[in-house]
Amino acid sequence: MLTRGFLCIFVSNFMMYTTILLIQCPDQKGIISDVTSFVYEHKGNIVYIDQYVDRENAAFFMRLEAELDEEQFPYKTFTQAFADGPAKKFSINWSHQPKSYKPKMAVFVSKYDHCLYDLLGRYKAGELAVDIPFILSNHQDLAPVASAFDIPFYHVPVTANTKEAATQKHIELLANHQADFIVLARYMQIIPPALINLYKSKIINIHHSFLPAFPGAKPYHSAFERGVKIIGATSHYVTEELDAGPIIEQGVAQVSHNHSVAQLIAKGRDLEKMVLANAVKNHVAKKVLVYGNKTVVFT
Amino acid sequence: MLTRGFLCIFVSNFMMYTTILLIQCPDQKGIISDVTSFVYEHKGNIVYIDQYVDRENAAFFMRLEAELDEEQFPYKTFTQAFADGPAKKFSINWSHQPKSYKPKMAVFVSKYDHCLYDLLGRYKAGELAVDIPFILSNHQDLAPVASAFDIPFYHVPVTANTKEAATQKHIELLANHQADFIVLARYMQIIPPALINLYKSKIINIHHSFLPAFPGAKPYHSAFERGVKIIGATSHYVTEELDAGPIIEQGVAQVSHNHSVAQLIAKGRDLEKMVLANAVKNHVAKKVLVYGNKTVVFT
Amino acid sequence: MLTRGFLCIFVSNFMMYTTILLIQCPDQKGIISDVTSFVYEHKGNIVYIDQYVDRENAAFFMRLEAELDEEQFPYKTFTQAFADGPAKKFSINWSHQPKSYKPKMAVFVSKYDHCLYDLLGRYKAGELAVDIPFILSNHQDLAPVASAFDIPFYHVPVTANTKEAATQKHIELLANHQADFIVLARYMQIIPPALINLYKSKIINIHHSFLPAFPGAKPYHSAFERGVKIIGATSHYVTEELDAGPIIEQGVAQVSHNHSVAQLIAKGRDLEKMVLANAVKNHVAKKVLVYGNKTVVFT
Amino acid sequence: MLTRGFLCIFVSNFMMYTTILLIQCPDQKGIISDVTSFVYEHKGNIVYIDQYVDRENAAFFMRLEAELDEEQFPYKTFTQAFADGPAKKFSINWSHQPKSYKPKMAVFVSKYDHCLYDLLGRYKAGELAVDIPFILSNHQDLAPVASAFDIPFYHVPVTANTKEAATQKHIELLANHQADFIVLARYMQIIPPALINLYKSKIINIHHSFLPAFPGAKPYHSAFERGVKIIGATSHYVTEELDAGPIIEQGVAQVSHNHSVAQLIAKGRDLEKMVLANAVKNHVAKKVLVYGNKTVVFT
Repeated sequence: MLTRGFLCIFVSNFMMYTTILLIQCPDQKGIISDVTSFVYEHKGNIVYIDQYVDRENAAFFMRLEAELDEEQFPYKTFTQAFADGPAKKFSINWSHQPKSYKPKMAVFVSKYDHCLYDLLGRYKAGELAVDIPFILSNHQDLAPVASAFDIPFYHVPVTANTKEAATQKHIELLANHQADFIVLARYMQIIPPALINLYKSKIINIHHSFLPAFPGAKPYHSAFERGVKIIGATSHYVTEELDAGPIIEQGVAQVSHNHSVAQLIAKGRDLEKMVLANAVKNHVAKKVLVYGNKTVVFT
Repeated sequence: MLTRGFLCIFVSNFMMYTTILLIQCPDQKGIISDVTSFVYEHKGNIVYIDQYVDRENAAFFMRLEAELDEEQFPYKTFTQAFADGPAKKFSINWSHQPKSYKPKMAVFVSKYDHCLYDLLGRYKAGELAVDIPFILSNHQDLAPVASAFDIPFYHVPVTANTKEAATQKHIELLANHQADFIVLARYMQIIPPALINLYKSKIINIHHSFLPAFPGAKPYHSAFERGVKIIGATSHYVTEELDAGPIIEQGVAQVSHNHSVAQLIAKGRDLEKMVLANAVKNHVAKKVLVYGNKTVVFT
Repeated sequence: MLTRGFLCIFVSNFMMYTTILLIQCPDQKGIISDVTSFVYEHKGNIVYIDQYVDRENAAFFMRLEAELDEEQFPYKTFTQAFADGPAKKFSINWSHQPKSYKPKMAVFVSKYDHCLYDLLGRYKAGELAVDIPFILSNHQDLAPVASAFDIPFYHVPVTANTKEAATQKHIELLANHQADFIVLARYMQIIPPALINLYKSKIINIHHSFLPAFPGAKPYHSAFERGVKIIGATSHYVTEELDAGPIIEQGVAQVSHNHSVAQLIAKGRDLEKMVLANAVKNHVAKKVLVYGNKTVVFT
Repeated sequence: MLTRGFLCIFVSNFMMYTTILLIQCPDQKGIISDVTSFVYEHKGNIVYIDQYVDRENAAFFMRLEAELDEEQFPYKTFTQAFADGPAKKFSINWSHQPKSYKPKMAVFVSKYDHCLYDLLGRYKAGELAVDIPFILSNHQDLAPVASAFDIPFYHVPVTANTKEAATQKHIELLANHQADFIVLARYMQIIPPALINLYKSKIINIHHSFLPAFPGAKPYHSAFERGVKIIGATSHYVTEELDAGPIIEQGVAQVSHNHSVAQLIAKGRDLEKMVLANAVKNHVAKKVLVYGNKTVVFT
């Protein structure tokens, strides 16, 4: 009997899948009702539902986690049925993904190592539900870190002359490793449009200031000059306009007159780590939707 | 033409109502779908939907704001139809209320005036969607404040001997003024069960510590003794067990060794004001659901 | 005996005074030692000492609270002796003031009342060690608030044509009431140089953004457009360059995609109140020193 | 000429040392003046001075960084002269240490790795001015982490029977490696008095709650049960009374009803890392003074 019970549970688990459904469309009456009924009618169970209406722009956003039975209503059937059903009816811009899918995260770095150590520590500690196919840098310095964590490291130098070739190399590596998204963990090179267009809303940067204050290089020096009492860090998706992409997460810390530039930088490192890690976590959990130049981040 | 347009808008607004629906029941498949379909079928529009499932206790919670047409589906009909429909089907513990309703908030105080000034300032500045039928105190000290803000003031002294009579007087005043809920803005008397039972989950207290640390009197002194580096304040619904009711909101502030007890108290005042005001705002917006000894607070 | 003891204490208290000494000068060896010895040699007791060296600019700052005996070393003698002694020796830019002095704070407002209510509530609750000689506005709207708190109210309208006359009226009122400093509690007019020069580092403004992000008007609208995840408020001394004076205090609050502009504004009000109140408290306690376009704020 | 200038600077740097002086004594008139004069008279330059008076207990605390000339006033002479001078005169409990000294930090862990990864990441990134002679654990699990960071790892199992022997082994290892202090980075064993007494105010623990709320094991479960809206972490020196030693640093994070216990634990990890790292940094910088069961932490 016990064995049979165990088998039964095993079989049942094997058959169930959880899908994360992301929806974006013009606000209309009946969307929620229709979408939830769609799940219900196919014997699904809604685990989470998050919804937001931008009333000014009459835009509707929803994130829904539903458990369904692979035997009764397979994932592929869901895809087709949703496309033919609610998606068509309400002109929905949508995607879904099995919750169990682990996205492949490529990490770009230069010489600063604090964000890299933080991400890798979290990765090893099981906090980030990703695979890391490789770490890429325009410098050799952080190769030993990659090695200590058993992750392939590629050194792709970037100079004025080699910039285009470097981008081609990047694109090739990303394709070969089927990277789903890219994290710029203090990567100090501007990402060219060729790469941005391939990874739209899929390149996460950490900027070491409370954007839009102090964009560009040396924000801590500017913060020191201005005598601010709070510093910040901003994680955003990379767009062609520098430091101006959709903001995913921001964090701040109090400072005072007796912080030198060096101390601001030191204090800012913790911010950068936290803010980047949170942005990555939300991206991985498919909790971030981009619209216009802004994000909806469900919590 | 302009006049006609104006009339049209006026009529249209007159006909619409927004209701806030609060739902609590055992978690079951199809609730969201059923409830949202109920609204949709009666030509309603869901403005906000917030939902939470306590998976451990298989409990389902939902807050929904829906716009409906008073002519096509009057508020009273909604009440009856929902009771006979989804509420019955899913054994839902529910309530609804027109969003336009301004609850009547009675304020109890003793001698401390900072929370009172804060609430009244917000009230006058239009931040709190309430009416204040009266301020009640066991002391005379704050009568002038009530007077400056044009609010009736009742002085009901409380001594060991008069405690029961005082409670009767409280209950009478609350009934006469049809008070919907009570805010204890640093009211320094224990509320007896007779009153608690009449206003279950409707008496909001502010405790000047980060509960469950430092319950009881003199928490700032205890915090000083223990040498904590952060102090807090906690707003909760009053239950018979002192300082142990469901927590609505908590706030904290950093302190250091060079804060004396007096400075902790001074710093704590701002916390108390903010935390109490936020708890009141969430209560008034019907964003707080109580279950067991905890709260769900939708944001 | 008891009576004699009491008298003795009384006399002793009567004779003692506490002075707050602010010092700013080029960094040099021996300043701390010299200044503290000066106090000690005159039988004084140092209660607090705060000190800061800006190493980059070789600038030295100190704030010192000392108890002295009015009979043995009167306040006036202290003033002269310090000027002739350490001040001369180290070319110190200095000031001192009895701790018991209550500065006169003029409050300028327009139509927004939340900062005014907050300041007046704190004033009545004894949190602000100031006198408020008057409230001044370019509108009539807040006259009843001033009246409820028993504070004189002056209505000085400002139009393009009357601007200069209004400033003269302001200066006259400030002089007549011997105002020590001015708080702009959401006063929506630009302060002209004539007034700024009279009250250098003595006009405290609250700006409703996290400067230098979103200077100028409508910062909450700009914050909404940019999709920031944190909003802020900044209190600073008024200088001729708009929103660019030395920052005294900043505060921030988390926001998300589902805050409308109206909700950002509502959330920002609490920030504005807290940040302005803290800036005023630090100014009143003489904890703020201005140098260049920055502040040293001792805590 | 250039060469001579370079030599001159080199020699001058070679000769200078910075000492960090910690002072604790009954509050008395003239201490600051005497101590600062002592430095000045020996041609020293005071770089930082922090001071605090606990007026209730009439206790005086000071931390002073001074640059002195090794040739004119060697470190050893300073030690003797200060002991014979101000220390004797004011009965000062004091210590000093060259700022350049890197303390040896032993790290104890069990199975949780997040604090370990965080500390080692910071160590490698140059944030912590320490040497790490070894990592010790009662389990084998984290040996590979130690190895990846090239740090010796000792496995000392602890059972009811081997507890005493284990402590002896600990003491031996600490002595052999001349460890200056110990960090318990989620080490899940109670430290016995024998070790506590050897490292008084030198064993830093991280507790995963906002002490004094939820001491003991499973604080996140208790926090969940109580329905708190804020969780915390506390770093403190280990004393014989469990979770009751002097608090060095505390941190908090907002949570809501929709955090499961697992999510509280996940969210708490970041708090634990930050709070422990900050406590370690302050300890290493000799900014923490212990008195009674509290700390003075200069900032």
